[in-house]
Amino acid sequence: MKSTSACLVCHVSQAQRILSKYVNNEEEKWNLLTKVLSDLSTVKYGLKPIDISEEMYTNLEKYLKIDDIFRNEKKKSNEIALKLYDTFKLKILDSSDPLYDAAKLAVSGNLVDFGAMPDSLEFLISKVTEIWNEPFSIDDFEEFKLKLLKSNSLLYLVDNAGEIVFDKLFIDIIKSFHKDLNIAVAVKGQPIINDATIEDAKQIGLDKLAKIIDTGLKTPGVTISKSTEEFRKAFYDYEIVLAKGQGNFEGLSDEKRKNLFFALIAKCDVISKFLGLEKNSKIFINSKRISQA
Amino acid sequence: MKSTSACLVCHVSQAQRILSKYVNNEEEKWNLLTKVLSDLSTVKYGLKPIDISEEMYTNLEKYLKIDDIFRNEKKKSNEIALKLYDTFKLKILDSSDPLYDAAKLAVSGNLVDFGAMPDSLEFLISKVTEIWNEPFSIDDFEEFKLKLLKSNSLLYLVDNAGEIVFDKLFIDIIKSFHKDLNIAVAVKGQPIINDATIEDAKQIGLDKLAKIIDTGLKTPGVTISKSTEEFRKAFYDYEIVLAKGQGNFEGLSDEKRKNLFFALIAKCDVISKFLGLEKNSKIFINSKRISQA
Repeated sequence: MKSTSACLVCHVSQAQRILSKYVNNEEEKWNLLTKVLSDLSTVKYGLKPIDISEEMYTNLEKYLKIDDIFRNEKKKSNEIALKLYDTFKLKILDSSDPLYDAAKLAVSGNLVDFGAMPDSLEFLISKVTEIWNEPFSIDDFEEFKLKLLKSNSLLYLVDNAGEIVFDKLFIDIIKSFHKDLNIAVAVKGQPIINDATIEDAKQIGLDKLAKIIDTGLKTPGVTISKSTEEFRKAFYDYEIVLAKGQGNFEGLSDEKRKNLFFALIAKCDVISKFLGLEKNSKIFINSKRISQA
Repeated sequence: MKSTSACLVCHVSQAQRILSKYVNNEEEKWNLLTKVLSDLSTVKYGLKPIDISEEMYTNLEKYLKIDDIFRNEKKKSNEIALKLYDTFKLKILDSSDPLYDAAKLAVSGNLVDFGAMPDSLEFLISKVTEIWNEPFSIDDFEEFKLKLLKSNSLLYLVDNAGEIVFDKLFIDIIKSFHKDLNIAVAVKGQPIINDATIEDAKQIGLDKLAKIIDTGLKTPGVTISKSTEEFRKAFYDYEIVLAKGQGNFEGLSDEKRKNLFFALIAKCDVISKFLGLEKNSKIFINSKRISQA
């Protein structure tokens, strides 16, 4: 999925929010932002948004001399979401369709995204608990559920910190229905925005429930051709792939493989327009629909 | 008033909206926006937002080969607002304080701003008719009203097309109470964003009610030192000055002269933070308060 000019505006806006977080002096902030504008002015048309993010965040880390811009927020997101774990688990186990409800919660968790969303962590988490049971705008979940019955393995690509707690709960519920399912969870290879890395997976004990692998990449979404051999092998070997979030959608929407599902909230105009949906639609979609589009 | 880094983001966003209006091809739009990013990356810290606007809009006109980006919208804004004139005049004449109500309407009209607002013209006008009678968050109108009683002349700096119809109505009401008041209206010297020029003043017949002068400038707000001698003379000679809109506020907020009033809606974070107000607050303020701040 190609970036549009709106993706440039969004990246400028992200950079300004990050600079405002780390730099108090207005003149210094101005000078750093004009550096970012100069960097972005050289980006050629045709890249994916996740590639622009990688370049811009790498530059920002260099300018700010910080190696993980949202380290504290990621840790805090996980902590806040973990406090909700048991309550949600009880609610979900008590529901008439626990798998479906757990999926809706996990996808709602995709709101916790410091790239696309300008809101505070607390606001985003409260919003997740507000919308968690709302239906999917595109709903291929039944198909995913049927595939689970017939398959032995699932590769689950997570997106953001905080959100992964809800992914863990979903995986927990999947495992209670499919005890022998071989599940691997793929995290990002290096810190980028608030995307979950191995550190986050360990913080929330996701490594106790599934094998954790990483994409080897810093991009906030995986591009198969650039990923590690281990990831690439998993991507083709596992019978079902579930990819969470906009970044993974951007990276994989052109991939042709069966049983590839995307689950996300379409948080920006570019993605929602691409999908023909209202902004902030929650979707669980079989990738074959996208190839047909 | 100095620009902040948020003003850069806002200008990038304005440029993208304008390019989306004139350029269909996504790659061409991308290439023009990266030119704008490159231009903005060279802007030094310390300028007023109106100076960045002048430079950026001049470049955009060159890139797009268009000399007045919002010509049609300005004409249409005036037409739509003119249709509301008689109804509002009746309402206002029927009110217990026509001068005050006309002022509130004129300031509400400041919403019709294609620079700061991403909404459609129709939405903005409907919003004006919705909020027109809401109170000012800072209200020095009583002081302005008293000054009118004791003064012989008023220089009224208008802001945007469409909005000037509501300014005309306010001036109409002022004149009905102060028949001998000498009123001059100052428009922008050249087309910039949707700011009113002499053409707009004539389109709505404002020239029948008051003397029209212009600032001589293309900036969406006047800076005294750069304005024409005629404007500068008027600025110091007229007993009261009322300056509408964010641009004129940016240009004149450091000026020391008595009986200088600003009337605007604080439509962006930078201005509202500067004034210590919620975004979209409607204000009518004596400039002496700002000097004291």
